[in-house]
Amino acid sequence: MKLTILGCYAATPRTFTNPTSQVLEIQNHLFLIDCGEGTQVQLRKNRIKFSRIKHIFISHLHGDHFFGLPGLISTFMLLGREAELHIHGPKGIKEAMTLLLKLGDSWTNYPLVFHELHARGSVLILEDEKVEVHTIPLDHRIYTNGFLFKEKQSPRTLDIGVAKRHGISMEQFTAIKKGADGISAKGEIVANKELTLPPPRPRSYAFCSDTVYKQDIVPIIQGVDLLYHESTFLETESHLCERTKHSTARQAAQIAGLAGAGQLILGHYSTRYKSLELFRQEALGVFPSVELADDGKVFEL
Amino acid sequence: MKLTILGCYAATPRTFTNPTSQVLEIQNHLFLIDCGEGTQVQLRKNRIKFSRIKHIFISHLHGDHFFGLPGLISTFMLLGREAELHIHGPKGIKEAMTLLLKLGDSWTNYPLVFHELHARGSVLILEDEKVEVHTIPLDHRIYTNGFLFKEKQSPRTLDIGVAKRHGISMEQFTAIKKGADGISAKGEIVANKELTLPPPRPRSYAFCSDTVYKQDIVPIIQGVDLLYHESTFLETESHLCERTKHSTARQAAQIAGLAGAGQLILGHYSTRYKSLELFRQEALGVFPSVELADDGKVFEL
Repeated sequence: MKLTILGCYAATPRTFTNPTSQVLEIQNHLFLIDCGEGTQVQLRKNRIKFSRIKHIFISHLHGDHFFGLPGLISTFMLLGREAELHIHGPKGIKEAMTLLLKLGDSWTNYPLVFHELHARGSVLILEDEKVEVHTIPLDHRIYTNGFLFKEKQSPRTLDIGVAKRHGISMEQFTAIKKGADGISAKGEIVANKELTLPPPRPRSYAFCSDTVYKQDIVPIIQGVDLLYHESTFLETESHLCERTKHSTARQAAQIAGLAGAGQLILGHYSTRYKSLELFRQEALGVFPSVELADDGKVFEL
Repeated sequence: MKLTILGCYAATPRTFTNPTSQVLEIQNHLFLIDCGEGTQVQLRKNRIKFSRIKHIFISHLHGDHFFGLPGLISTFMLLGREAELHIHGPKGIKEAMTLLLKLGDSWTNYPLVFHELHARGSVLILEDEKVEVHTIPLDHRIYTNGFLFKEKQSPRTLDIGVAKRHGISMEQFTAIKKGADGISAKGEIVANKELTLPPPRPRSYAFCSDTVYKQDIVPIIQGVDLLYHESTFLETESHLCERTKHSTARQAAQIAGLAGAGQLILGHYSTRYKSLELFRQEALGVFPSVELADDGKVFEL
C-alpha cells in the first residue's frame, strides 16, 4: 500500500503548494482521492501513469478539492483513453462536469461513469475481490465524505514444504487453498491449518478531510493502519473550527488515539502558519505516531 | 502597454508549460485574457496583483482557455475582494460558474458580473475614456471571439512654452486643451494647433486564439500594433487545420501581413514540436517581425 500526496494545503493553489489530492496504490488499484486545481500537473511531476487511474473519489464540492477534475477528464480524452473512468462524489458532480464538457462540445471518447453520493451514514461504494471502499460521513460546511480503503482478508496460502512432507497430491491443492483438509500418502487426514500459512494482515487507509472534530467517525475507522486527518488549524486558532468546520492538529490526534490508528498523517494546513512542524508537535502531545503530509511525499505501508 | 504571457501552449497544462492566459496592462487597466487551469499560480509567479484585475475576457469555452476561472473567482473571494469583477465570455459561462459556486455553497462577497457574448459580428464590449475593447469573431470548433484592445486618441496637449511666449492667460488652458484657439496678451487669436502638441499615437493589441485561418478578421484588426495569433501547427501539419480549426505559423504571418500589423506574436503551440524556433522561422518567411510567446515572457510597446 502506497500513498502519494499530490497536494495537502488548504484553500488555494499557490506558487509552491497545491490543494488537496492524493493517489493511493492498493491491491493493484490506483485510486485518486480529491482533485484540486493543478492535480494533473502534480500527477505528471510524480510520474503517475494516468491510464492506471480508474476510480476518482471526491470528498466534497469545494474548489480546492475538485476544480482540477474537469481538466483531468479532458486530458484523459486528449490522451485517447478508452477505459471506463468512475467518479465517486457528492450529488451535483455529474451535472457540473457534464455542463462543462457540453459547453466545450467536448464529449469523452471513453465511458465516464458517475456514482453520486448522498447517504448520511457510512456506505460501501466499491468492492472487488481484494478491496472495499466505504464512505466516512464527515461534518463540514457542505455535504462531505471521507473514504476508508480496506484490503480484504486474503485466504491462507498453501505451505508447499509441509504438503510435500505429508505426500499430499497436487490435485488437492486448490481445495486446500479454499479451506479443505488434505489426505496424506498414508491415507491420513491432515488438518488445513497444518497445510497452510496465515495470510498477511489486511491493511487499511482512512482519508478524513475536510471536517470539524467528529467522534462519530471513530467506530468506522477503528483499527485503521494509516489515518489522514485534516488539521487546518493549531489549537491557538481553535475558535475558528466551529464556524469553518475544520479541525486542529490536536483534534486530529485525538481521533487517531480513539480509533487506535497505526499512524496519523496530518494535512490541509492553513497557510497562515510559518512551520508545519508546529502541527506535528501539537499532535504528538496526544498521539505517538504522527507524520506530516507534504506535496510529493510518499508513505508506504 | 505591457503584455505578460502566463501560458501559451495548446491542450493541457504540463509540468513546465501552461494553457492560454495573458495579462494586458493598458491605460491603467489590467485585463486578464483567457484563464486556463493554473492561471492563478501563474499570476502569483509573475507577481501580478490580483486586486488590479477588474475585467476577464474569455475567448471560448474549451478547458485550456477557462478551467482556471472557477478557482480564480474563489480565490478572489478568499482574498476578501470587494470590488466588482466583470467576466466577458461566451453564453453559458454564467451558468457554469454559478453552478460550481452553488455546489460549494460559496457565494462571492464581491459583485460578480457576467457579460455573455453571442454576436456573430465584431462588437464593442467595453469602453471608457481611454480604451475600447472589441470582439474579433473567430472560426473555431465552438463559438469563439478574439479581442481587440484599442487606446483612444487622446486630445492634443498644451505646449506651455508656446502659450507663455504668446502671453496666453492660464484661465484659457482648459478650453485650449479641449480644442479652442487662444487669445494672446496683445488680443490676437492664436490657432489651437500652434498652442498644442500632437498626442501620442494610440496603440492597439489584438488577441486571436483559437481559430482556423480567417481572412475576414483582417479589416477588424487593420493596422494593429501587436497581434497575437495562434499557430498551433507548422505547415507540415496543415492538413489538420480544417478539422481542428487551428492555424499554422505561416497562416498567422499571412494575417499579420494583410492587416499591416506592427509585430506578430505566435502562440498556442501544439506540444508535438521539439523547438519553438521552427514556428518563428516559418512565419518569418511571410512576415518580417515575429516574436514567440512563452510562459512568463513580457512584451512592452
